[in-house]
Amino acid sequence: MVTAPAETAILSLLLAESPLSRVELARRTGLSSTAVTKAARPLIDDGYLHELPPERTAPGAGRPVNPLSVTPDREFFVGVKISADTLYGTVCDLRSRPRFHASRPLGDRGPTAVCALIADLVDELLDAQPEFRSRTRHVGIAVSGDVDRPGGRVRYSVLPGWRDVPLAEIVARATGLSVSIANDVKALTVAEHWFGDGIGTEYFALVTIGAGIGSGIVVNGQLVDGAYGVAGEMGHISVDPAGPRCHCGSIGCVEAIASSDAILGTVRRATGHTDLDFDGTVRLARDGDPAAREAFARAGKAIGVGIANLVSLLGPERVVVTGEGLDTYDLFGVHIREAYAAHCFKAAAKCPLTLRPLPWEEWSRAAAVVSIQALFP
Amino acid sequence: MVTAPAETAILSLLLAESPLSRVELARRTGLSSTAVTKAARPLIDDGYLHELPPERTAPGAGRPVNPLSVTPDREFFVGVKISADTLYGTVCDLRSRPRFHASRPLGDRGPTAVCALIADLVDELLDAQPEFRSRTRHVGIAVSGDVDRPGGRVRYSVLPGWRDVPLAEIVARATGLSVSIANDVKALTVAEHWFGDGIGTEYFALVTIGAGIGSGIVVNGQLVDGAYGVAGEMGHISVDPAGPRCHCGSIGCVEAIASSDAILGTVRRATGHTDLDFDGTVRLARDGDPAAREAFARAGKAIGVGIANLVSLLGPERVVVTGEGLDTYDLFGVHIREAYAAHCFKAAAKCPLTLRPLPWEEWSRAAAVVSIQALFP
Repeated sequence: MVTAPAETAILSLLLAESPLSRVELARRTGLSSTAVTKAARPLIDDGYLHELPPERTAPGAGRPVNPLSVTPDREFFVGVKISADTLYGTVCDLRSRPRFHASRPLGDRGPTAVCALIADLVDELLDAQPEFRSRTRHVGIAVSGDVDRPGGRVRYSVLPGWRDVPLAEIVARATGLSVSIANDVKALTVAEHWFGDGIGTEYFALVTIGAGIGSGIVVNGQLVDGAYGVAGEMGHISVDPAGPRCHCGSIGCVEAIASSDAILGTVRRATGHTDLDFDGTVRLARDGDPAAREAFARAGKAIGVGIANLVSLLGPERVVVTGEGLDTYDLFGVHIREAYAAHCFKAAAKCPLTLRPLPWEEWSRAAAVVSIQALFP
Repeated sequence: MVTAPAETAILSLLLAESPLSRVELARRTGLSSTAVTKAARPLIDDGYLHELPPERTAPGAGRPVNPLSVTPDREFFVGVKISADTLYGTVCDLRSRPRFHASRPLGDRGPTAVCALIADLVDELLDAQPEFRSRTRHVGIAVSGDVDRPGGRVRYSVLPGWRDVPLAEIVARATGLSVSIANDVKALTVAEHWFGDGIGTEYFALVTIGAGIGSGIVVNGQLVDGAYGVAGEMGHISVDPAGPRCHCGSIGCVEAIASSDAILGTVRRATGHTDLDFDGTVRLARDGDPAAREAFARAGKAIGVGIANLVSLLGPERVVVTGEGLDTYDLFGVHIREAYAAHCFKAAAKCPLTLRPLPWEEWSRAAAVVSIQALFP
């Protein structure tokens, strides 16, 4: 646990950007050089940081400086992502680099069975290398739905029977490790902000498209959680009063127009093929079926307007778009981009959209980042 | 200028909530009692704080404590709001209590004439009491449009000729005072967050309705500025693909449906009365004209959806709705509330909407708060 503010400041910078010189660390943190050296000392003693050989910037430029770097193998972190049908697990080092992956298909998806399977998966991951077992103290778990992160409880998830489950406590008892949990989109947002496309940004957002549509938002360098635990619900902002009713009860939500289920429903109604599945819808659209193409176009437009609305309100520096919906980007990408460009307010439109396909292993890596964050209470 | 973090923490708390005991200050700031006492010392020496007589909470409850309180008259602050036709000026004390108001009608609205008139108005305000003149160092100016606060420049305002005006520098030269400037809605948001309905909230938003529609957003206790200087543009989030084109170039913006000009335009087209003005539109609606009533209903619905979208993304604890649009709240209030309730996502709907009519003097008071903030660089 790193509790001193100065230690927190330099370790969190070095996690993402090792090595850095002490001069650079002082400049970036606003600390004095003396304070940097003093804060680094216990981190070096504990093995989290090490000094690199001195380097001179220019001949005669003064005394040599020893850049500081994180020691990635000092500690390992396990991340588990619970998806609808699979547990994905990853062991990461301190710099969030994945070192080992494993997964388990989910049979019974109730809380008891899933928790037992998580303990099993964690065991397999830690068995992969002796140093994983001896140097891992933290597990992070990411799951979709309404997650009470400080309380360690899943208040609600779409998985059957997941209502107010004390997930952190159950898995901590089963594994003997310290457990942190987070909503999966928020976990991914934090991982991208700390270690990915969001590094160094004060304003950042990540949007996921596919079966569900959501977003995570970073403002002034911090994740937006909302006063009542709800924030970033880009899938549930209303963009069309003539749009369909959403499962949340509202009308014209982005998700009600643009989720894969919404697209499927639209194409089923338009074509009369009530037994069509989503893959069939994609094939129809790629084969040029006008109704299917139109459904994707409308979905793309709703997503583009949704992102533009988020950007006009929050002003992020960059937005990363990800999720399994990227698999059909050929069908709605141009509509997303056109609607985004047409609806962003003035200078907010400078914010680029970055497409970033993230395989499942990235979601479990993000869960591991949640546990790296547990170093900074 | 208050530069030590501990001094900043206790002074900013005491500005809003004097008096507070040292125990309470320690609890709220996370500082030790010793650190509170140490940080308070220079502020007491400088006359910003004073100690109240000791009070015992209960017989035998230990040594007596001296609560700390801000000394409101230690320093005064001038705020000026530039509206479309008038300059409003206010002198506030350290606790942001208005002590004197004055205003000037605007003739020539170009930057040179307005800056000269601001200097003139500041002079009148400082002349009102000798201690205003001797104890005022800071002026805050609030203006609508695109304001570069750190640079002290108005990049763009709707006033004629206001393009890239170094407003802070010009007024500083003319008055000899230190000048801070801010967008007017952001200034009002900060004033409400520090001294009004937003006190103590981490997530807060203020929405203005009327001639323009905008919002200011506070997340994790800080104003949202946006990476490119654009944020809080609730008036320019798109809520209807079949809606009218907005002056910003986009389609279906809340402002394009719900500003007073938008309502007027709708009623003119529906009734064929091309010379109707906004007051006439209001009279028609109050007299039961269906087209006029429908225009207000549609406007109210767009505002309600816009606020709901903001709330689903940001999760504020409270939203304050203000602006001259409240004058016609009887015509669209119920539609705002219904649309808000119908479109908020789940627990985010716990966020109450507070109506708060703010006369022009509150806008100049908010400008003064911008200059109080200048104490905390």
